[in-house]
Amino acid sequence: MLASVITVRVRYGETDQMGYCYYGNYAQYFEIGRTEWLRENGISYKEMELTGIMLPVTDLQIKYLKPAKYDDLLTIKTYVKNKPTAKIEFYYEIFNGEELLTTGTTSLVFINTAKNRPVKAPQYILDQF
Amino acid sequence: MLASVITVRVRYGETDQMGYCYYGNYAQYFEIGRTEWLRENGISYKEMELTGIMLPVTDLQIKYLKPAKYDDLLTIKTYVKNKPTAKIEFYYEIFNGEELLTTGTTSLVFINTAKNRPVKAPQYILDQF
Amino acid sequence: MLASVITVRVRYGETDQMGYCYYGNYAQYFEIGRTEWLRENGISYKEMELTGIMLPVTDLQIKYLKPAKYDDLLTIKTYVKNKPTAKIEFYYEIFNGEELLTTGTTSLVFINTAKNRPVKAPQYILDQF
Amino acid sequence: MLASVITVRVRYGETDQMGYCYYGNYAQYFEIGRTEWLRENGISYKEMELTGIMLPVTDLQIKYLKPAKYDDLLTIKTYVKNKPTAKIEFYYEIFNGEELLTTGTTSLVFINTAKNRPVKAPQYILDQF
Repeated sequence: MLASVITVRVRYGETDQMGYCYYGNYAQYFEIGRTEWLRENGISYKEMELTGIMLPVTDLQIKYLKPAKYDDLLTIKTYVKNKPTAKIEFYYEIFNGEELLTTGTTSLVFINTAKNRPVKAPQYILDQF
Repeated sequence: MLASVITVRVRYGETDQMGYCYYGNYAQYFEIGRTEWLRENGISYKEMELTGIMLPVTDLQIKYLKPAKYDDLLTIKTYVKNKPTAKIEFYYEIFNGEELLTTGTTSLVFINTAKNRPVKAPQYILDQF
Repeated sequence: MLASVITVRVRYGETDQMGYCYYGNYAQYFEIGRTEWLRENGISYKEMELTGIMLPVTDLQIKYLKPAKYDDLLTIKTYVKNKPTAKIEFYYEIFNGEELLTTGTTSLVFINTAKNRPVKAPQYILDQF
Repeated sequence: MLASVITVRVRYGETDQMGYCYYGNYAQYFEIGRTEWLRENGISYKEMELTGIMLPVTDLQIKYLKPAKYDDLLTIKTYVKNKPTAKIEFYYEIFNGEELLTTGTTSLVFINTAKNRPVKAPQYILDQF
């Protein structure tokens, strides 16, 4: 299973008055994770968009096991278990040191921007599998 | 089934370069929805926190059916189907006019802030059911 | 002096662990204020962009006099003192009830999107003055 | 003059439909810059708060010279020119490679959290000057 790892530090502006990282910010952390997964597999999401393919999210699921706090240096592990079709599914685990804080999944669809229609994953992505 | 309705207008800063409302912002819209559900049932979440009970989210699920765009005036419908225990589940539907854009659910747990432990939902919430 | 008024409620996700509305969120409140100023003067910023003119911010200044807190219902007052040229300057005051919390200014430049160059303010804006 | 340097990559969720990094996000970049300045001078802002001193922002000024774009790896340079009193002023420059995109300043006040009153900067900060 292909995996990538990147770290992100919780910003002050990402905390809420509970003293935790606000639950809505994890969607950005997942986005950082999958961008990095693509990058480590030689794929620039930025360039993919420039070539007319975008990847909107259709499903998001998050389980919040333990809270992250200000200034925590989190590790985001991102996986792709199945070969993409018109859809690609990412799995995420967020750790603070050894401690697992959050798990999640996202489904995204490859869209031909000009036609605004789903298309098969580009060959350079399928080649990773 | 208890329901509440509130509107929110998509901010420019909530769009992304795809021209859509960024997928991570819906967690805030859901938070607005459930705060309003509580308010319409006579409950101030702000006061609940001041009396020592907080409500962190443990699960989030979102289905993105159609995109929201800048300046769209969205309608957030929020439901609670089951009587809360130590847990309360909210269901959300976000509409642009008649068009359903997004559905979602969140689970939250009542926590006694001082003890940092789950507690039964306060009686003034149970009384709504 | 032309002025507009709109209210916005502080979201939970906009607070930080100090228990205040995070200082970075006021830029969004100002954006809401100037969009409303335009709307009340019969101008849709959304349509302005569609006709090929965009309004990026070149200068931002904020004075934080008193903090806003979760669930506060803030009033944003937005003014334009001078007739726009290629530049338009907005002035903002944010109140919680009678209490002035924040003041600020932004300068924005009218840009012809196709040419990526500054242009004179559209006539329908100049006609407001 | 004391300076620190840190990099930050523009997130997809930080772009807006203009295709630029939204102007409101720079306040977070500045926060990252000054946290790093403190860290490089041996000071943990997190611990400062735990010892009862917080640092709210009272003034923010930003000049947007050129836009940042998605996936740009920005360099944030943070300076403190003057010895702090009850107030500390940070200066920021944000670069994309060699190109200067943004400059800004923030003023912050040392507050004794328990008394909610301004206090002189802690000695371990004054010792840096």
